[in-house]
Amino acid sequence: MNFKNRDILSTRDLTREEIDYILNTAEKFDKNPQEFSDLLKGRILALVFYEPSTRTRISFETAMKKLGGEVISLGAVEASSIAKGENLSDTIRIVSSYADAIVLRHPKDGASKLAAEVSPVPVINGGDGAGHHPTQTLLDLYTMRKENKLEGVRIALVGDLKYGRTVHSLIYALTFYSAKITLVAPEELSMPRDIIEDIKRIGGDIEETSDLKEVIPEVDVLYMTRIQKERFPDPNEYRKVAGIYRLTPELLESAKEDMIIMHPLPRVDEIDPRVDETPQAKYFEQAKNGIPVRMAILSLVMGAL
Amino acid sequence: MNFKNRDILSTRDLTREEIDYILNTAEKFDKNPQEFSDLLKGRILALVFYEPSTRTRISFETAMKKLGGEVISLGAVEASSIAKGENLSDTIRIVSSYADAIVLRHPKDGASKLAAEVSPVPVINGGDGAGHHPTQTLLDLYTMRKENKLEGVRIALVGDLKYGRTVHSLIYALTFYSAKITLVAPEELSMPRDIIEDIKRIGGDIEETSDLKEVIPEVDVLYMTRIQKERFPDPNEYRKVAGIYRLTPELLESAKEDMIIMHPLPRVDEIDPRVDETPQAKYFEQAKNGIPVRMAILSLVMGAL
Amino acid sequence: MNFKNRDILSTRDLTREEIDYILNTAEKFDKNPQEFSDLLKGRILALVFYEPSTRTRISFETAMKKLGGEVISLGAVEASSIAKGENLSDTIRIVSSYADAIVLRHPKDGASKLAAEVSPVPVINGGDGAGHHPTQTLLDLYTMRKENKLEGVRIALVGDLKYGRTVHSLIYALTFYSAKITLVAPEELSMPRDIIEDIKRIGGDIEETSDLKEVIPEVDVLYMTRIQKERFPDPNEYRKVAGIYRLTPELLESAKEDMIIMHPLPRVDEIDPRVDETPQAKYFEQAKNGIPVRMAILSLVMGAL
Repeated sequence: MNFKNRDILSTRDLTREEIDYILNTAEKFDKNPQEFSDLLKGRILALVFYEPSTRTRISFETAMKKLGGEVISLGAVEASSIAKGENLSDTIRIVSSYADAIVLRHPKDGASKLAAEVSPVPVINGGDGAGHHPTQTLLDLYTMRKENKLEGVRIALVGDLKYGRTVHSLIYALTFYSAKITLVAPEELSMPRDIIEDIKRIGGDIEETSDLKEVIPEVDVLYMTRIQKERFPDPNEYRKVAGIYRLTPELLESAKEDMIIMHPLPRVDEIDPRVDETPQAKYFEQAKNGIPVRMAILSLVMGAL
Repeated sequence: MNFKNRDILSTRDLTREEIDYILNTAEKFDKNPQEFSDLLKGRILALVFYEPSTRTRISFETAMKKLGGEVISLGAVEASSIAKGENLSDTIRIVSSYADAIVLRHPKDGASKLAAEVSPVPVINGGDGAGHHPTQTLLDLYTMRKENKLEGVRIALVGDLKYGRTVHSLIYALTFYSAKITLVAPEELSMPRDIIEDIKRIGGDIEETSDLKEVIPEVDVLYMTRIQKERFPDPNEYRKVAGIYRLTPELLESAKEDMIIMHPLPRVDEIDPRVDETPQAKYFEQAKNGIPVRMAILSLVMGAL
Repeated sequence: MNFKNRDILSTRDLTREEIDYILNTAEKFDKNPQEFSDLLKGRILALVFYEPSTRTRISFETAMKKLGGEVISLGAVEASSIAKGENLSDTIRIVSSYADAIVLRHPKDGASKLAAEVSPVPVINGGDGAGHHPTQTLLDLYTMRKENKLEGVRIALVGDLKYGRTVHSLIYALTFYSAKITLVAPEELSMPRDIIEDIKRIGGDIEETSDLKEVIPEVDVLYMTRIQKERFPDPNEYRKVAGIYRLTPELLESAKEDMIIMHPLPRVDEIDPRVDETPQAKYFEQAKNGIPVRMAILSLVMGAL
């Protein structure tokens, strides 16, 4: 399988075989990181971030540096000041003449597609608009697989399913693995109908509820997401919802022993810190898994493997 | 020729022989970058930027990293916050005890000269005030030479010739190469008289016009620059001028086939994006040429060659 | 002596033997930096700065890079934007899964202790609140020792002794070396009583005065600190004090020939720039000494020595 020079814009462009190949590669890096410490020596990765995303940025930066490569970075402030006088495609053209690959973060849907069209080097979508964030989805899948909770798994996606970029991207990939998906959200934040219809059309097993408590004993994976105050015009309404969708050790008492809890982070109030101590809590592991997954993607698109 | 520990403050301090030597060195890096990937291993370059200049910064950073060196960076915000409590010379003294060379960007004319006086390590002027930007001039010359358009060339400098730092620096260097220079600017933005007199005194071949259309068929190099709205008290006046000095494929129809178009970038409206597809468009190449030129300068002043 | 995985939170946690061991290690790096240029190859240092501190940041960054290691950095702006949605301990947990050590700068006392509790990798306090800044103290001690002015030395601490984090941290360490300490401050900025009592209780030799002039001929080390305008409600009061505690070549005429002047920098008006030319001025040397001292600390806590 050859990923050299390939853009990574959305997991929806990837087949199951391609996803598995990336996850297998990530596993190799995870097991023997030292073996690859000079793999990208002399290569340069450009991070072009038009909006701040510290976590995504330092995760890519760490991955690149663990492979012996170097990073140049256009920060959010600079990028926006560039933006004043220059269009995205000019910036990408110049940066692509300096670097061997580009990670782009941009507030607008489709920005990474536009960038990929003008760039002679591969572009990795580090999140654009409400659309896609493929490396987040790949690390989510990697985490599930590592915990032996991927094929045919029962998974609940919980919280803000209306605006959450992460879950929109993940849900499609889950259908490759015959996952049984339960959507758990308050009505105000439920998954868009067109996505649900889409998933059903491609044969996905999906149901909806608003009752977190009832779902917990059933599932193998509990994928929590943040519920943002700004989504609610009425603060009382927010408080009510936030209270119901807050995971506590008490709620977890009915969970399967080997169930795992995931969260794309940062979390705010939706997971009680006491949950961190439970064996089910895997969200910090999940963040850590971003490193081997991004090492795999960088090495593959730069043709180093 | 020995550049070790030499400050690069202005191209006017350089002889033609020295410029040629730098360009020859850049050519070596351009042809075989891999050969030099460990040349500056263990060395540290400090970027001290008192005003933002993303392009200059990432170009130097890329050049240093392609040579195996490391970069430490004082960004614009930090530098200005330092500036509150500390004078430039204290900052330079400390940074020069950490690094093997310094690139300084500063809003005031002469700042890099002051820095060079207190620094035991070489200082490279990354642009100070309206004065000098020697590495930009060197990459301009390198681009012209690479395109076989330097010795005795007919060149038009177009746009804002009054405030444009780039053209003020380039015009002197062009006289070394017996270039025939045509200045093309609206009256409000014409080249300062003292520079024109200076160039004539040293034997330069120089003439002035405000008619871009008439000049295009004559020249080998069309060096475009940005016309900034802020220079015009009357927005109507700006629109009129911007319209006249906008390069389009239609205007280019009368151009020589092997003419080249340059621009220090970022461009705004002065070059129609459709021009990018013409064979004459060389401005992205020009930006790319900044890397080998800066690799050459860094290696030379650090005494690694 | 084994420092592997040890947090460096305060010099008060260190014994004299441990401090000496760190200073001895720093001396090795100072004498033969090249010998250690690959010592931390493949390791990553995370700089997590919740308030700007350019000097501390680039000093650690330089130290890490001189050892062949890599740096990832959460800047002040990013860190504070993280802070909005996420607590310090979550940030540290994630960063510690990417990096081999963390340097934390934080406005609150005790932040680095909290970070150390959740981090599996060593945490180095890069300054927290009014509390501690151990690497500054270690580089101060290293500078004194290098100048042969540590054991039994007569030292004056001058300026803002009330709020100055640096002197609060240094004064305790000095008692290990039987220093004779004179505190020189205006009444408004005198050393807190509890610290003075503490030092006396552990047998420290300490006295107070407000007369800088009288002290100069007596001492081996003159440790100056900045007096900040903001500390004074009345600007006239500030000007009076700032005038009295300003070091000039004239004031230095009565000093011992081999006396040394130190300052944590940045200085503002408290040292006349003409003093820079005197043989006693050692503050730029002191800043430079931050590099080998931080190289030593990084290598020790990462277990590379």
